[in-house]
Amino acid sequence: MTLTPGGDTVTWRPDGLTVPTDASTLLADGLAGAPGGPEAVAALVASAAEALTRARDERDGPLPARTPHQVAEAVRAALGPLASTPGGDPRAPGPAERVLTRLTHALAVNAADPAHPRCAAHLHCPPLAVAVAADAVASVLNQSMDSWDQAPAATAMETQVIGELAGLAGYDPEIAGGVVTSGGTESNLTALLLARDHALAGPERDPVRHGVARAAAGARPRVLCGAAAHFSVQRSAALLGLGEDAVVTVDVDSHHRMRPRALREALDTLRADGDLPVAIVATAGTTDLGGIDSLGAIAHIAREYGVWLHVDAAYGGGLLFSRRLRGLLAGLDRAHSVSLDLHKLGWQPVAAGVLLTRERALFAPLSRSVDYLNPTDDEEAGYPSLLGYSLRTTRRADVFKIAVTLRVLGTDGLGRLVDACRDLTLRTAARVTAHPRLRLATTPSLTTVVFRYDAGADSDEVNARLRRRLLEEGRAVVGRTRIDGRVWLKLTLLNPDTTVDDTAALLAEVVTAGDTEVSALKESR
Amino acid sequence: MTLTPGGDTVTWRPDGLTVPTDASTLLADGLAGAPGGPEAVAALVASAAEALTRARDERDGPLPARTPHQVAEAVRAALGPLASTPGGDPRAPGPAERVLTRLTHALAVNAADPAHPRCAAHLHCPPLAVAVAADAVASVLNQSMDSWDQAPAATAMETQVIGELAGLAGYDPEIAGGVVTSGGTESNLTALLLARDHALAGPERDPVRHGVARAAAGARPRVLCGAAAHFSVQRSAALLGLGEDAVVTVDVDSHHRMRPRALREALDTLRADGDLPVAIVATAGTTDLGGIDSLGAIAHIAREYGVWLHVDAAYGGGLLFSRRLRGLLAGLDRAHSVSLDLHKLGWQPVAAGVLLTRERALFAPLSRSVDYLNPTDDEEAGYPSLLGYSLRTTRRADVFKIAVTLRVLGTDGLGRLVDACRDLTLRTAARVTAHPRLRLATTPSLTTVVFRYDAGADSDEVNARLRRRLLEEGRAVVGRTRIDGRVWLKLTLLNPDTTVDDTAALLAEVVTAGDTEVSALKESR
Repeated sequence: MTLTPGGDTVTWRPDGLTVPTDASTLLADGLAGAPGGPEAVAALVASAAEALTRARDERDGPLPARTPHQVAEAVRAALGPLASTPGGDPRAPGPAERVLTRLTHALAVNAADPAHPRCAAHLHCPPLAVAVAADAVASVLNQSMDSWDQAPAATAMETQVIGELAGLAGYDPEIAGGVVTSGGTESNLTALLLARDHALAGPERDPVRHGVARAAAGARPRVLCGAAAHFSVQRSAALLGLGEDAVVTVDVDSHHRMRPRALREALDTLRADGDLPVAIVATAGTTDLGGIDSLGAIAHIAREYGVWLHVDAAYGGGLLFSRRLRGLLAGLDRAHSVSLDLHKLGWQPVAAGVLLTRERALFAPLSRSVDYLNPTDDEEAGYPSLLGYSLRTTRRADVFKIAVTLRVLGTDGLGRLVDACRDLTLRTAARVTAHPRLRLATTPSLTTVVFRYDAGADSDEVNARLRRRLLEEGRAVVGRTRIDGRVWLKLTLLNPDTTVDDTAALLAEVVTAGDTEVSALKESR
Repeated sequence: MTLTPGGDTVTWRPDGLTVPTDASTLLADGLAGAPGGPEAVAALVASAAEALTRARDERDGPLPARTPHQVAEAVRAALGPLASTPGGDPRAPGPAERVLTRLTHALAVNAADPAHPRCAAHLHCPPLAVAVAADAVASVLNQSMDSWDQAPAATAMETQVIGELAGLAGYDPEIAGGVVTSGGTESNLTALLLARDHALAGPERDPVRHGVARAAAGARPRVLCGAAAHFSVQRSAALLGLGEDAVVTVDVDSHHRMRPRALREALDTLRADGDLPVAIVATAGTTDLGGIDSLGAIAHIAREYGVWLHVDAAYGGGLLFSRRLRGLLAGLDRAHSVSLDLHKLGWQPVAAGVLLTRERALFAPLSRSVDYLNPTDDEEAGYPSLLGYSLRTTRRADVFKIAVTLRVLGTDGLGRLVDACRDLTLRTAARVTAHPRLRLATTPSLTTVVFRYDAGADSDEVNARLRRRLLEEGRAVVGRTRIDGRVWLKLTLLNPDTTVDDTAALLAEVVTAGDTEVSALKESR
């Protein structure tokens, strides 16, 4: 490579380029942030909205009446082959709008639509329109939270919103810490990292610098959680180098709540074995039954044994917004850390996870000074940095949609949506109980209804098959799980617009599909 | 709680609720996916676009002429206190649109705008309008990649696009694996997790089940990378329980490229010490100098020593799109895994990270069967699951914007944008070289220009101060870093619309600010 000082002539040896590339002709549709860019984005979104509406009408149900193979074929056809030239599919080359609407249509026709009342399988909420629009603003500005000079306002906004959420959780906003994450799994992982390094920190026992093996010489680090806690606890333990079998699962009751007495016994056993408990993970809202651990009792035990208490409230954290229901989270404020997911009971598009700590200082193991991001003299000059709160480096300003939603609805507004889902759940559970061929697993703790079509000895197979039948026929997206070795179906009710007539229709679909599967099974014998 | 079978009457004991909550009045602005929702989103985005344009005109520069404290005050004023009632700021209660435009304006006025030609500090690109619009579509549909029944089309789309990117990287798409990530840091972490578990796997040495301490009994796991590799390598090693000091940094040349001979020596030393090298991390595009390691030579060494080779091409991976420049990545196809970031040289809004592996089977340590997400009989019935490719559970369909962009521009279109940034860089470097008071660190390897204002013995302090002055006066966002103990400034040129006249103006700002700081320093003595 040769640089010719003082002039514009540049020679790039490998291919002998001498003429600067003109990119402007390519950017006819432009950069989102350039003059005219936001308007171009708005026009494109308006076209996409038409495609979305057209696709929803065509789909005419919660998901396409297609097999996975047929969906893949449809998507492949819409994408066309990857070409070097613009337009993708050579049969339909064209500008941005044409490609966007074609692919939007393909995505939406073949989507499982969380806004449809018969899509009720997972912790997969229908997002609020205003949160989606705010998310688009975040995309236009593309602020990145890893340094102040990539996100001046967003840095300030995240700091304030984290303080507000900490206050809602019962922490002192002045000293609490926190960060917006990609979801409960990242929040739980981060919390367990902080707990691990907190427990193992010491002059010769520092897992950040010297690793778990050296820090833990002798005592084996262990993590305790209820037997129905989220699988990300085991996954995090593996990631953190502790091993999945470092996780001790504690006995739960029929609502999947950890038994405090069993927790105490488990801690005594670890102590007797010379192991080192680094964290207790309590759950506020298990994925299946919505079980909420007795946080007060567990916090008491955690303090007594001197162990970090993390609360995974990814699901149940939304109760903080509800005046009626927030009492179920009593004791949360005594945890060292808590995971919330506003893309569950908060109606945000993914991602809107949050990790809070009672004290900001608990994030110390993640603190880091990077010459090009947060040099010491810049920090001393008053330039704040959120780099030391996150496992990520580049990080989208997901806080913006959260901030907008909190202002549009207020905490009570969100609370009323939570209450609506909760009421719907209880009314739906009552319908299950009333039906002769449906069986309710247990009274709902949160917003899931776990039940099954009762087909006697064949129930497991019939329920698994009827669920796939509903998917394949595009009639309903119903969840399934396994409890005590049996297959159960599950409705996760996160749509505040859904009525009990809607869920009754959904249950009727389940019964019809169950009847069909029972007949098919008899015929095949 | 009492459920009354057969009826709709429900009693929720804790607060005696008997009347179902009506949420419909709250949802006047609606769910994004409900009938009328996409249109509501489009209308809100149109209003936000006006606010964005107004704010850009007001800001009239790459960032606000405000201190961090002033920015925080402005954001606080716009947010108002968190209220329980809708509207947030009690002085301006109102519907979604009013809140959204108020906060959009506050965010944008106080943003560091990557679309502004004088915002050139970081790997922080101005996104394409069409990619932003596609991102909004992903938000409306809110598909989540952790199970097929939350993302039928998006699952198929990610599978196809990952195959296409694998093909671009030189892998065989039929057997390659990969996943869309939140960015280079998550990609690098995932790759090192796979490498760790690959190296330590065995009947008695399985870090997933039993942890690093047991798996590594005896041999200490080590990671090798160039001395200018991204700090996420050290961070990942700490996270994975190996310890930061498990990372052996290998000597680099003046362009920050790892010296292959030094790598070989480091491997020999580890071997002699009985340590276990689990991965070599080569870099294709270091953050500061853009240095691209000699991938072919390193791949040869990795194979000879039987060590996993990961290539962090978060920055340089964009060269794959450029016919002129992709030769610089020769040897990439021989790596076990590679990180790409399409939110760098790919003009996507964050996040658009990608991790690719030469073989899909290399993801085995992450594979997992979860009863409620991917039960075995569903997989056998043809329902695919991407759960085993990601560290996350809930995961946004970030692939959609990537797919749309690839079809709109084609690979050559993206390549021309890469070429434009590259040309701009060389021309800007020539301007630096020509200026009597500016000094170029070295000829650019990629799209960064590392230089400094030459103020003799005071250069470090003057450069640090002039950069903060430019920020505070809202004149320019220039990067800084530290090389060989000295402070350097940095332009990271990712805006294909920026001209050499723009960067010349930016350099003039640097010189003026430098002159001012030199005078101030003299006066203070």
